[in-house]
Amino acid sequence: MKATRNHASTGILLTDQYQLTMAQLYYRQGLHEKEAQFDHFFRSYPDYGKHKAGYCINAGLAWLLDWMKGVCVRDDEINILKSQTGRAGDPIFGEDFLDWMRTPSPFADLEVDAIPEGRVVHPNVPLTVVRGPLARAQILETPLLNHLNYQTLIATKASRMAGVTPNSLLLEFGLRRGPGRGAVEGTRAALIGGADFSSNVGISHLLGCPPKGTHAHSMVQVFMALGGSELDAFRAYADVYRDDCLLLVDTIDTLESGIPNAIRVFEELREKGHQPVGIRLDSGDLAYLSVHARKMLDDAGFEEAIIVLSNQLDELVIWQIITQIQEEAPCLGLEPDHVIDKLAYGVGTRLISSKGHPALDGVYKLVALREKDAWVPSLKISETPAKIPNPDYKRVWRFYDEREKATADVLALSHEDPRTWREFTLHHPSEHNVKRVVKAGEVSAVESLLERVWEDGRVAVDVPALGEIRARRQADLERLDPGVCRVMNPHIYHVSLTEHLWDEKQKLIASLIP
Amino acid sequence: MKATRNHASTGILLTDQYQLTMAQLYYRQGLHEKEAQFDHFFRSYPDYGKHKAGYCINAGLAWLLDWMKGVCVRDDEINILKSQTGRAGDPIFGEDFLDWMRTPSPFADLEVDAIPEGRVVHPNVPLTVVRGPLARAQILETPLLNHLNYQTLIATKASRMAGVTPNSLLLEFGLRRGPGRGAVEGTRAALIGGADFSSNVGISHLLGCPPKGTHAHSMVQVFMALGGSELDAFRAYADVYRDDCLLLVDTIDTLESGIPNAIRVFEELREKGHQPVGIRLDSGDLAYLSVHARKMLDDAGFEEAIIVLSNQLDELVIWQIITQIQEEAPCLGLEPDHVIDKLAYGVGTRLISSKGHPALDGVYKLVALREKDAWVPSLKISETPAKIPNPDYKRVWRFYDEREKATADVLALSHEDPRTWREFTLHHPSEHNVKRVVKAGEVSAVESLLERVWEDGRVAVDVPALGEIRARRQADLERLDPGVCRVMNPHIYHVSLTEHLWDEKQKLIASLIP
Repeated sequence: MKATRNHASTGILLTDQYQLTMAQLYYRQGLHEKEAQFDHFFRSYPDYGKHKAGYCINAGLAWLLDWMKGVCVRDDEINILKSQTGRAGDPIFGEDFLDWMRTPSPFADLEVDAIPEGRVVHPNVPLTVVRGPLARAQILETPLLNHLNYQTLIATKASRMAGVTPNSLLLEFGLRRGPGRGAVEGTRAALIGGADFSSNVGISHLLGCPPKGTHAHSMVQVFMALGGSELDAFRAYADVYRDDCLLLVDTIDTLESGIPNAIRVFEELREKGHQPVGIRLDSGDLAYLSVHARKMLDDAGFEEAIIVLSNQLDELVIWQIITQIQEEAPCLGLEPDHVIDKLAYGVGTRLISSKGHPALDGVYKLVALREKDAWVPSLKISETPAKIPNPDYKRVWRFYDEREKATADVLALSHEDPRTWREFTLHHPSEHNVKRVVKAGEVSAVESLLERVWEDGRVAVDVPALGEIRARRQADLERLDPGVCRVMNPHIYHVSLTEHLWDEKQKLIASLIP
Repeated sequence: MKATRNHASTGILLTDQYQLTMAQLYYRQGLHEKEAQFDHFFRSYPDYGKHKAGYCINAGLAWLLDWMKGVCVRDDEINILKSQTGRAGDPIFGEDFLDWMRTPSPFADLEVDAIPEGRVVHPNVPLTVVRGPLARAQILETPLLNHLNYQTLIATKASRMAGVTPNSLLLEFGLRRGPGRGAVEGTRAALIGGADFSSNVGISHLLGCPPKGTHAHSMVQVFMALGGSELDAFRAYADVYRDDCLLLVDTIDTLESGIPNAIRVFEELREKGHQPVGIRLDSGDLAYLSVHARKMLDDAGFEEAIIVLSNQLDELVIWQIITQIQEEAPCLGLEPDHVIDKLAYGVGTRLISSKGHPALDGVYKLVALREKDAWVPSLKISETPAKIPNPDYKRVWRFYDEREKATADVLALSHEDPRTWREFTLHHPSEHNVKRVVKAGEVSAVESLLERVWEDGRVAVDVPALGEIRARRQADLERLDPGVCRVMNPHIYHVSLTEHLWDEKQKLIASLIP
C-alpha cells in the first residue's frame, strides 16, 4: 500500500467521483460554461441529544480560499483520471474533457460571496454563494463542504463551551483524540469559536496564539519508578519552569499527596521570588476537588493560583461543575465566584469531535442557472417542505431591533433592498401563513451579510487575523438575544424570506410538482 | 491570519506543548536517554448509544510509520520553539535542549512493536508498544494517538456496516461531511474496515481502489431549469456513460417519474447493446421504495440492475431496511433475498464521523523504565480499577479454541511463552477473583500478535497493500465468535492477564497506594 498522502489526495482530486462524471457530461452537452449559482448552507443546528445549539459560528473560509488559490490541475492528476476505466474497460474520461480539466487555476472563473468567518450564522441562510461556469462550480462542491462543515461545527461547539465559562480560560487539548490531520483544522476552529489557547504546538504558532501545556502523569511516574517521589517530580518541574509552574496533582491522591506537595513546591518558589501558576485536576469529582483545592491554596497564601480542570469536559459538564461549586463553596467559607473565577478548563475529546453531533449537515445546492441575460431559478423538490432549498440569486440581510439585538436573517431577491423599506413582511421559509410584519421604526439597522471573497482567480478580501475573527464572533454574540445563546432549549432565531422570494419559491414548487 | 497549514502544523510540532516541556525537563535532569516503554491501547469499544461494538479493527499504522519516517526537526521549527516565552518573558526552551531536539530523525532510537493493521483488536491490549529514550518516546505520544485513534474508530464503524450487508457493495461517500483533511484518513480507514469503494477520488486512487460515483440531483435540475426534463437528463447521462449508467431517480418523484424514466433509458441502452448498472434512491422510505423499484426493474427485464441506497445510513438503519424488505417483498411476489442481494449502500456522514461515538479513547501510558539491566514496571493509580494500566514489558497472545475461534487475548510478561504451557490461568485485568483455567487441550493455537514495525530509524515491515490488510480483517472476523460480531449487545470477548502479570500488577498497586 502506498502509505503516503500526497498532493493527489489533497489537491483537485479531493472531491467525489460524481463531480467529475457530471462535469464531463456538462462538457459533452456544451453546458459546462453555462453560468450557475450554488448556495452553501446548513439545514439544522447541531443537536447534542440532551441539548442543542441556537446559533453557529461560521468558520473555515480562509482555508477554503487558500486551497482554491493553491490548487492546480497537474499532469499526474490528469493521468490518474486517464487511467480510470468503466465496466467495459474503456476510459471513463475522454481526452477532450481532460484537456478542458487541465488548467493552472480551475476556479479562476468563479465568483464567491460569503459570510465572514467568526460571524454568528443560522440554518438555511446561504453562507457561501458560488457563481460561474456550471462544471467548475460543480467540482467545487465537495472540497467546499469538506473545508467548511467541520470548522463551523467545531467553532460552534467551542463557542458553547466558552459561553458557560465567560470569565475563565478555555484550553483546547484535543489533538490526540482528533480526526487525524483534521485535528489541525479542529484546533483552528476551536480558537475561532471560543478556546483561548490550544496545546497543539504547530498550528497555534501559525495562528499567532502561543500553545499551552504543562506535564502529564507520566512525568510523576518516571520519578517514582526511579525511586523518587511526586514531590521530587514537582521540584524538578518547578526548577525548570520557575515562572510557569503548573502542576498536575492527581497522579497518586489529589488531596492527600498532590496538593500538599504542590503547595510545598509553591512555597519554595515563593521564597525564591517566583509566583506559581497553579494546579491541574484530571480525575475525580472536579467540583468537590476544586473547592477543597481552592481552600488549601488560599490557606497557603496562593489566592492567585489557578486550577485547571480537565477530563471529558463539555458545556454541560462545565455548567454542572459551576453549579455544584456554587452550592459547596460556602460550606468551606469560600465565595463561589472566587473559586469559579480562578478556574480554567482543558477541553479535549468532546470539543474536537463535537461529541453528540459529529457532523454539520451543510449542503451545496443549485439554485439558479443563467439563460441569456436572466437567472432562471432552480430547486429540488422534497417531500419534506423544510428540505426544499430557496431558489434564485439572493441576498442575505440581518435585521436588528430597537435593542440592537439581531432579530432575523432575511433572504431577499437580489434586486430587493430592505434598507429602503418602511415595512417588512417576513415569511417563514417553508410554513404557509407563518409570517410577521415588522415596521421600519422597530428596526435599528439592516446589515448585508455576504461579501465578495473570491473573483478573477484571486482571494478578494484581506484575510483577517485570528484576533479579528474572534472580535467579530464576540460582537455578534453580544448582539444575539441571550435566549438564543442559551445552552439548553434555546429560542429559535428567525430566518425569513421576503414576500417576493416566498412567492417565487411557491410558483416554482407548483411548476415542478408532477 | 496565516491561512496556510504548512509543514509546521503537520511535522514534529504536530504534538502537544507539554510533550516538549516534559522532554526539556527530562533533558535537564539527565533522564532523556533513559530507556522507557509506553503502551498504546484503548480502554473501551465504541458505544453508539443504542448499540455498541464487540471488537475493533486496527488501522492507521502505515501512515504513522510514514510520518515517523518523513519527520525531521528543521531550523524553522526550532525557531518556532525558540520564539516561545514564558510569563516572565524568558524563552521557555533553552539552547541546550533545542540543540538536542534538532535532528534529522527524531525517532531513530525508538523500537516500535505493533499489531498489524486490519486485525481485530480489543480493549486494554497493547496495540502499539514504543521502547527507547524517554524524551523521544514521550514526544511521540500525541502524533501516535492522532494517527491511530481516528483510523481505528472509522475502520471499526465500517466493519460493523459491512457486517450487516455481507453480500452487498458498501460505498463510502463521506468526504463532504468529514472532518476536514482528516476525511482522507477516514476514507482509508473505511476501505480497510469494510467499505468496498469510496467516492473520494484522490485517496482511492493512491490506495489502488477505483473511486465510484454517478450523479447528483443538480444534474437533473440543470436540464429542467433549461426547459428540459428528467428524461432528457437521464438520456444525456446514458449517452456519455453507456456501460456505467446508474441513475439517481428521486429528484422529482421516485415511483411516478424517476424509475419509469430510468427504465425507458435502460431500454434504449439495451437496444444499443449496453447493460445498465442500476438506480440510486436517496430519500423516502428506502425499504418500501427498494421493493417497488425491484419489481418495476424486474418487470422490465432488468433483474441484474442494482439499487444503491443512500441517506443517513448506518448499521442499524441498514439492518432495519433489510428486515422490512424481508416482510414486504413477498407482498409483491418477490423473493426477499433477490431484492436484498441486489442492493448496494452509500454511507456518508454516519461512517466518516462515527456518529454516536466520534472518538476512540486510545491512550499511551508509561509502563516500564529500564534501570541498569532491568525493566522497572510503572503504572498510574486510578480510583477506577479498570483504568489502571497493565505494567511492565509485555507480550500479547491470542488463544484459539477447538473451533479455531479466538477465545481470549492474553497479556503476559515478556519471558512467558504460553505456547509451552499445559494449563493457563487467565485473570480478568482488574477484577480480583475473576479468572478461569484453560487446559492446553482446549486450545487449538496460541498466536503472538505484536510484530516489530520500526527500528534503526526505519520501517521494519513490508508495508502491506490494501488487499492484504482487508484479507487479515476478513480472516480475523471469521475466527471471531458470531456473538462478538453481533451489532447489538455483543458478547464480551475476554482480555486476560497471566497469573504472573496479575501478581506483579497487584504488588505494584499495593506499593503505590499511599
